[in-house]
Amino acid sequence: MNRLRQQMAFLREIDRLKQVQRRSLLLHEERWENSAEHSWHVAMAVWVLAEHANETVDVCKVIQMMLLHDIVEIDAGDTYVYDEAAMAAKAEKEQRAAERLFGLLPADQARRFRAIWDEFEAGETPEARFAAAVDRLLPVTHNHGTGGKSWRMHGVSREQVLARNRAIEAGSHPLWQEARSMIEEALPDEGANRED
Amino acid sequence: MNRLRQQMAFLREIDRLKQVQRRSLLLHEERWENSAEHSWHVAMAVWVLAEHANETVDVCKVIQMMLLHDIVEIDAGDTYVYDEAAMAAKAEKEQRAAERLFGLLPADQARRFRAIWDEFEAGETPEARFAAAVDRLLPVTHNHGTGGKSWRMHGVSREQVLARNRAIEAGSHPLWQEARSMIEEALPDEGANRED
Repeated sequence: MNRLRQQMAFLREIDRLKQVQRRSLLLHEERWENSAEHSWHVAMAVWVLAEHANETVDVCKVIQMMLLHDIVEIDAGDTYVYDEAAMAAKAEKEQRAAERLFGLLPADQARRFRAIWDEFEAGETPEARFAAAVDRLLPVTHNHGTGGKSWRMHGVSREQVLARNRAIEAGSHPLWQEARSMIEEALPDEGANRED
Repeated sequence: MNRLRQQMAFLREIDRLKQVQRRSLLLHEERWENSAEHSWHVAMAVWVLAEHANETVDVCKVIQMMLLHDIVEIDAGDTYVYDEAAMAAKAEKEQRAAERLFGLLPADQARRFRAIWDEFEAGETPEARFAAAVDRLLPVTHNHGTGGKSWRMHGVSREQVLARNRAIEAGSHPLWQEARSMIEEALPDEGANRED
């Protein structure tokens, strides 16, 4: 019964992920997305899009990576990928968060969950590369669907967006093609047609 | 490329699940839960709690069931399980929703996703029984954590809650024990100590 109590405590605690606000807008309603609903969407996305991975992936493991990948934000908050100062401090805060949060689970389970999160963070396996690609693809999709609104509100340039999302290519060539064309539509290169 | 376009259209459409409001309150903030963040939470919960299933289950399939299980609510809305009239009309609305939504995917993928959703709805496999148990356990946990608030607001009695959730037992004996003690704490039997 003790294991079940620890598991229930973990499940109650992670309810807080529903309160972590991201910098992405929903597609069909004007409000910011939270990290729990994003985690569901990106878990669906890796499943639906798995055939486009550059390397063969264990779909189940990629789904599990996506379910877990943002849990550390409960303590560490969501770090906006275009905020360079915040990104530098991110790793240490997230490590502490992982210790506390996965530490609520029975020890064997904590180790297994932590290993999956560590693998995602390290980005060195086919599963981690594909997971990271789809995790980037969705905010591009949301920005594309809202005319680049969140990027514009946060003063992010087309060059920053292209540089940041180029890593999608390491997980999936066709998804990077798709992302690039969405970025170009949402943030057109206004210099391209000038003669100067 | 046509497959990818269909898959992206599906992923954009299911963003609407974030706008479907449930009758459960969050545990740590006073607002209603939506069906997308619930789907994430319950996918985490089946994974964390799988060892308590009465029968051995394919954890990956149960997670996939949970990711998909509420997608039909985009068209059919969330049906409150204690609203008997609405529950009677639910099945037909949800069948139509499943046709439209899964139908956005490439045909082979639509068939596979639909088969998993049908299996969940039919409730006849170990995976479907366990999925249904955990899907019921979470609202009990949320009501327990908020002093039965959502049940009281909707005028639901202790007897209705016990009757509705007894089905948890078919998926997991220990989770039903846990649920029953949470229900008894959240909605104490006020007649039990009277002498009349």
